Parts: sequence; structure tokens; C-alpha cells
Amino acid sequence: MPKVSVKGQNMPESPIRKLVPFAEKAYKANKKVYHLNIGQPDIKTPQVAMDAVTLHHLDILAYTRSEGSEGYRKKIAEYYNRQNIPVNYDEIIVTTGGSEALLFAMGSIADTGDEIIIPEPFYANYNGFATASGVTIVPVISKIENNFALPPISEFEKLITPKTKAILICNPGNPTGYLYSKEEIKKLAEIVKKHDLFLVADEVYREFVYDGEEHYSILQEESLAENGIIIDSVSKRYSMCGARIGCLVTKNKQVLSTALKFAQARLSPPTFAQIASEAALQTPQSYFDEVIDRYKKRRDLLIEKLQEIPGVKVGTPKGAFYCIAELPIKDSDVFAQWLLEDFDLDGETVMVAPAAGFYSTPGEGKNQVRIAYVLKRESLLKAVDILKAALEQYPDN
Amino acid sequence: MPKVSVKGQNMPESPIRKLVPFAEKAYKANKKVYHLNIGQPDIKTPQVAMDAVTLHHLDILAYTRSEGSEGYRKKIAEYYNRQNIPVNYDEIIVTTGGSEALLFAMGSIADTGDEIIIPEPFYANYNGFATASGVTIVPVISKIENNFALPPISEFEKLITPKTKAILICNPGNPTGYLYSKEEIKKLAEIVKKHDLFLVADEVYREFVYDGEEHYSILQEESLAENGIIIDSVSKRYSMCGARIGCLVTKNKQVLSTALKFAQARLSPPTFAQIASEAALQTPQSYFDEVIDRYKKRRDLLIEKLQEIPGVKVGTPKGAFYCIAELPIKDSDVFAQWLLEDFDLDGETVMVAPAAGFYSTPGEGKNQVRIAYVLKRESLLKAVDILKAALEQYPDN
Ligand SMILES: Cc1ncc(COP(=O)(O)O)c(C=O)c1O
Ligand SMILES: Cc1ncc(COP(=O)(O)O)c(C=O)c1O
Repeated sequence: MPKVSVKGQNMPESPIRKLVPFAEKAYKANKKVYHLNIGQPDIKTPQVAMDAVTLHHLDILAYTRSEGSEGYRKKIAEYYNRQNIPVNYDEIIVTTGGSEALLFAMGSIADTGDEIIIPEPFYANYNGFATASGVTIVPVISKIENNFALPPISEFEKLITPKTKAILICNPGNPTGYLYSKEEIKKLAEIVKKHDLFLVADEVYREFVYDGEEHYSILQEESLAENGIIIDSVSKRYSMCGARIGCLVTKNKQVLSTALKFAQARLSPPTFAQIASEAALQTPQSYFDEVIDRYKKRRDLLIEKLQEIPGVKVGTPKGAFYCIAELPIKDSDVFAQWLLEDFDLDGETVMVAPAAGFYSTPGEGKNQVRIAYVLKRESLLKAVDILKAALEQYPDN
Repeated sequence: MPKVSVKGQNMPESPIRKLVPFAEKAYKANKKVYHLNIGQPDIKTPQVAMDAVTLHHLDILAYTRSEGSEGYRKKIAEYYNRQNIPVNYDEIIVTTGGSEALLFAMGSIADTGDEIIIPEPFYANYNGFATASGVTIVPVISKIENNFALPPISEFEKLITPKTKAILICNPGNPTGYLYSKEEIKKLAEIVKKHDLFLVADEVYREFVYDGEEHYSILQEESLAENGIIIDSVSKRYSMCGARIGCLVTKNKQVLSTALKFAQARLSPPTFAQIASEAALQTPQSYFDEVIDRYKKRRDLLIEKLQEIPGVKVGTPKGAFYCIAELPIKDSDVFAQWLLEDFDLDGETVMVAPAAGFYSTPGEGKNQVRIAYVLKRESLLKAVDILKAALEQYPDN
């Protein structure tokens, strides 16, 4: 029997997937499960985006240009310009989700065995794209004690080798909720320029920033024109994860023409989704104001309630809709499974994402979980109560 | 300035892309260009597929399962069963086009430096997916004289090394139009089993088979249960290239679970497109009868007219909607450019795809072009007339 590739064997499973069979067991046992583990917003997709698809009048659902339709790219450029990010439409390649933008970016800048430095904990699927691309992720640890701020630049410098091609950040961060300051971006700019590296910034949560803080994009930093690559997506911004539209943005002409070749090989991004995404750009500011207000209130509630649980440590996330919580337990994989299999509070339990999957250093994050606040207030309150009761009863802490 | 990857530099450009600037020049000069170069059908997408999207009533455009929704996969399985291809729904992973299925297949079965043998000429983007995956394509030449039939098995055996992981065929073939016989599939089955290789079959043109011939899928061949991987797509079948839906089908559990990890990393295939594709499965047989009849008539016309041109050699394609034509010229890249730049017949010209891009052996196919018959009869007739006149005037043959 022919064998699968070593790369395929090494492809990581999502840290949540492992729990799915246990969640299914919980459903079968008629338990209600509050999902603190997912990144799928519960917010309605803007009507204007849905309507654009409903009202389509295409006869032939044809390929679009590989880099996305010019009309759509021009409107994306206007969106960036409104955010004070100076970008031209021809510096944008439309991709099938931010996911594909990450894959194109890695393929365009790194060869097999090359290294990319990423502050951990990080979005777990970076591991998958790196494995698929033959790239080695070199983690630099960020700490819950510091709210997951940028590690000292000296820590990065220690890790740079001739094989290092890029630093990759997620801003604001999944799973940390950390928002890098302008000063931190400037420090990163300095180090990548000094060592001739790319700075890839996953800014898919750009809009979700709280407490009056401002997001500072890497392409607002002029000195990064040749080094910066933005990964973006409509998934979270407009609560349209199922569209599968994102983009790669760079002013580096070589990267653009290289990423375009990856884009050409797969022909084009999805047509209906581009129609929806182009229309979504008309979403009024009031939609965002409302959504951000809702997330902020949820965050405040979640953090306050988590901090009341004895032995729980949690940062104060400034963006996105996740936080990392440290629990008074030994192994969050075991705990998460126990929650689904062996625990309930009046027939209800919670599902959390064990944080080890967000670290690439073995052993890190074992007593942490990622909690997403994409649930209604009441559900969130209920879920934290359940978590509290569970921690009191948990035999293994 | 940081540099792009070697892989990125090696990513091939599509053989057609190079001509785009010359096509644009032709438009600017107000020439009418008949496109014999594209694979985008001019056939209407089935109404039932378009309506399903128009009538959607989603509130949140959410991620689907990474492997595609269960409902859709069950209906795909029924489709295969109707084609006498015994497949269960859990042997199917829905992908973002056949393109992504090819990428997942290569990643799942081959590591950097591994080899895949492909009869050439082949679909040019196999080069792109191979480069992205670090895979080396080893071509085995098929000849216009034999109508691009399967090369002798002895030719494959000569090329098998310890690094060979698979044989990849396209059936029916783009760009050749060749349809492999049951006997040829059985020969391939024997060789892949003998050497423990995978047989990957790109069957995206399955429906487009003429002259009462029957398509024989690799998964109709029971002995290929562990070795066979089908690449499929809705793009051409339902003239819905812009949907970006395809699938990978295999009975090999290891390949399935490996490909699923690639699928999980990119989260999910596009939601609207899955809705359209699921509905497309209700397309009545009469649609296909009509479409196939139309393609067949176009093919007959095209081949007949091409054969009338002095010095032109052309096979008799039995499937898909392409053929390779050998022209009395030295270099089809130069000729194709000349057609756009320097030639017109009463203000009209044609665009063809130079065939060298479909070969990986340097120098092969230089006097050949690929011609697609996705134009109306009258346009096709006109285009061949123009090609004939051009060949008479071409200074360089
Ligand atoms: C940090 C981050 N980047 C990228 C993605 C990819 O999202 P998509 O492919 O839906 O754009 C996600 C999705 O959860 C994410 O959290
Ligand atoms: C032979 C072959 N395979 C695969 C594809 C990929 O098509 P898609 O990604 O649209 O399914 C094409 C498109 O032209 C093709 O001709």
C-alpha cells in the first residue's frame, strides 16, 4: 500500500478537532454545550452583502481574474485609504480567505527548511500552512504576565539565523487579544530592516479594538514598504467566514508578482463571495460601532467574571474576541475532555480550546485555555459559571 | 531588500498569461480577437444552481465543515454511484476547485524532492502545484501521431525511481482531448500496484466524452481502492468555474485523513458555492445531452476545418473540449504573439495557447498550439478561417 507523505503525517490537527468526538458524546448524552472554543462570530452578516448575492444576475458563473476583479480591488484600496493605510489597488491580491493569503505569503518568501519567527501563542493554523510549505516556525514566547506584549527585540535577535526569512505577527492577536502599539511595530520594523527580513502581519481582526485604542497597521509604517506583507480577510470583519475571501497586500513588487503566480495556478477566488465582499464594503460605520460595542461589553463581562474565579489568571485583551486564561489545572487537554465527558452543571457544560495547540514550544500553555467571546451575554455568563463550578469539582487540579 | 523564495521564482507563469499584454494591445488597436485559448465554457450555468443561491436565506454566512457539508457530500456520493463509481460520502473531501484538490493530493502523498510521473502534454497548472509542493514532475511523452494515447508501460517503468510517489493522469485530457480506455486504466493499475504508487486521476472533464465512448474512472477499477485518488470539479461540468468547488475522492483512509488536515488548516470551502454546487446536482440529463451534443458538433467542425489547412496536423480528441494542433511553424510562442500584434484579417485575429507550456520537456511542443472549442459554431468557423489566412501570410514558417 502506498504511503502518505512525511509532510502529511506532520500536518497538525487543529487543537479543537481532537475534542469533537467528546463534544458529540456530550450531545448524545443530551448535555447543553456552551461553545467558548470557536471563532465563528454569532453576529449577522451585513444585509447589503447578502442582498448583493440574492440580486445577482449572472448567466455564467465564470472565473474572475486570478488577483480578483479590478473593481473589487479598487474598493478594497479605498477601504485601506480610509484606514490611513496607503495602498493602491494593484498592490492587492484577492485570496480565498486569509488562509490562502497566508499560504501564498509563505510560499512566496520561504523555501523548504527556511524559518519564520512567530511570537507564541499564535493562531494554530500557522502550523498547518508552515508544514504544507515546508517552513519551520521558530517561536518566541510572549507571556501572560505581560499581557502577551511583544517579547524584547533581543529575544528575536537571538533566534535569527541565515535561514530566517520573516517575522509573522497577528495584530490584534488570536488567541491573545493583544494589540501591538505603534512603538512595538516600529521596533519590529527596525529589526526586519536590519536583518533583511519580511514582516508579515495578520490583521484580520483590525476593526476589533477596544478602549479607544488605535490599530497601527504595518503598512502605515512607511519604512516597511519593501518588507511588509499584510494578510487580511472579510471573515470576521463582516461576519462572513463562509465567503472565503481575503487578500494579500504588499508594496514589494517582487512579492506581488510571485504571489500572483501562486494565484494564477489556482485560477481565481470564488465569484459569489467576491460579489458579497465588494458589497460588504458599503457596510455603514454604525454596524461596526454596534458590533464593537457588543464585543467590548462581552469582553468586560468575561474578564471580570474569570478574574473572580480563584486560581484563574487572565490578561486584559485589547482587541479581537479571544483571551487566554490560565487555570488551576495541570493539563487543559485532559480538562477540556473531562468537561465534555464527565462533567455537567444541571445538564450543561462548556467547551474550551486547550492552549497547547497555540504554542509550538512543547509543554507551553498546558494550564491555559483559549476562550472566545462570540456568545450572547447571558450565555457567556452562564458558561463562566459552569467553568467555575467545574474547576471546583475537578479532581485533577 | 528581502528576497522572494527560490520556489516563488520557479513558479511557472501560465502559458497564456504571457500573451495577455499582446491581447490588450490588439484590443487597443480595435481588433476583434477570437479566443481559442481559454477553458472557460460559454455554456449557461444550470438555472437550478443559480436559483439556489438567489433564494438563500442565510443570516450568517458561516464556515462549513472543512470537508464540506455532509448533505452535499452525500449527494456527491449519489452522483458517483449513478456513474457506477462506488464511493461513500465519507470518502469525499470538498475542495475549493479541482485546483485545491490537486494541491491537497500532492501535499498528502509527496515530500520535497519526490517525483510524480505525468504523461505530457499536461494541464499547465500541474507545474504550479508541483512547484508549490516541492514536487518534481517527471514527464513521459505522449505523441500526436498516436493521438496522445497512453505511452507504453515500459516507458513509465524506465522513469520509476525510489522517489516516485505517483502517476498523474488527466482523463479525458486537457490539452489533448484523449480518453483513456478501460484497458489503459487497467495497465496503469497494474504498474502502480506493482511499484506501490498512487494513481491520481484528474477527471474534471468526465462528462465530456463523444462518439458513444464511455469514461472509465479509476475508482471503477476495484484493484485501485488503496492507490486511486480522483480529482474532480464542478467548474466545467456545470459551467460554473467561478464557484470554486471541487473534491478529492479516495478510498485510502490514510490519504483521506491526511488530506483532511490540509482542509482543516484552510477552514472551509466557500459556502455560497457549495449551495450552488449541491443544487447543480439536480441538473437534468437533458442539459448534459444538449451540451455534449453542442461540444461534439463544434469538435467535428473544428477538426474538419483544421485538417483542411495545409501543413496542420491534429488528432481526433474523444473528450473534454480541447485539441492540440501541430502547425507549419517553428515557434508557437512567437506565432501567437504575431497573431495578436502584427496580423489581422479584416480587423479580426485569433488568440491561441502555445503548447510548450503544456510540456515539461524543454523544446517539446514548440510547433503546437492548444485550441479550445468553447466558442459558438460561427465564431469557431471564423476563427479557423483567420488561422488559415494567418498561416499563409506568416513570414517565419
Ligand atoms: C488570526 C487569524 N488569521 C487568519 C484566519 C483565517 O481566516 P479566513 O481564512 O477565514 O480568512 C483566522 C481565522 O480564524 C484567524 O483567526
Ligand atoms: C485538467 C484540469 N484540471 C483541473 C482544473 C482546475 O479547475 P478548477 O480549479 O476550476 O476546478 C482545470 C481547469 O481548467 C483543468 O483543465
